[in-house]
Amino acid sequence: MNAVHLTADLHGCPAGLPAMRDTEALRELCLHAVREAGLQAVGELFHRFPAPGGVTGAVLLAESHLAVHTWPEHGTVTVDAFVCNASADNTGRAERLLEAVVAPFGAAQVLRQRLSRSSPAAPPPAGQPHPPA
Amino acid sequence: MNAVHLTADLHGCPAGLPAMRDTEALRELCLHAVREAGLQAVGELFHRFPAPGGVTGAVLLAESHLAVHTWPEHGTVTVDAFVCNASADNTGRAERLLEAVVAPFGAAQVLRQRLSRSSPAAPPPAGQPHPPA
Repeated sequence: MNAVHLTADLHGCPAGLPAMRDTEALRELCLHAVREAGLQAVGELFHRFPAPGGVTGAVLLAESHLAVHTWPEHGTVTVDAFVCNASADNTGRAERLLEAVVAPFGAAQVLRQRLSRSSPAAPPPAGQPHPPA
Repeated sequence: MNAVHLTADLHGCPAGLPAMRDTEALRELCLHAVREAGLQAVGELFHRFPAPGGVTGAVLLAESHLAVHTWPEHGTVTVDAFVCNASADNTGRAERLLEAVVAPFGAAQVLRQRLSRSSPAAPPPAGQPHPPA
């Protein structure tokens, strides 16, 4: 099992965007992005905090998860796109998913980070010998 | 807004553990860990994949989220504990949450990583002047 975890921290997002405060708007944005990226949703959950708070949500994927949190009172949004590469290399799909969620927020600044969640005990790629014990 | 994101990738987990395959067992483990860490759940969602697959789940928190994925066929589990520090420094709670989820899986190897999700545009701590423009 190896996996890639992409994060984006958005700043300077307009507080009036529906997806900053409304669970249905954020849900539609997320599910559309998942479909466009060619990933498979298996469940989703969104929660709205009392004003002036924002919305928090997760889409469970066959390939792992998407999580989004908004803070309209700070103009801030965080996005996590975590996909495993168990049956295919989904890295490109994770990148498309992240960008499809990030773009509609119109952020002034975006801090992107990438974590390899690869296994230290992962087997070598097919066709390559195991390292000596 | 600043936040800390802790991850743990577990390897060599016994495939027969109930939390590796059963949504209710994983749900109970997660919600217990959230309570013990002093964090507040606002929603939770778990999904079981067809055998030999595992369980995937997320707990939405007032402070952000916990996500867990299991691959019993590989003896692998991933855990994400993401907490914002908007109203208090929740870093210690995130560390307790992560360890409370990790420990019951009895992993042979654990790869831990830590991401700062701090804002590049975050205001300075109270009492310190803003930097010159």
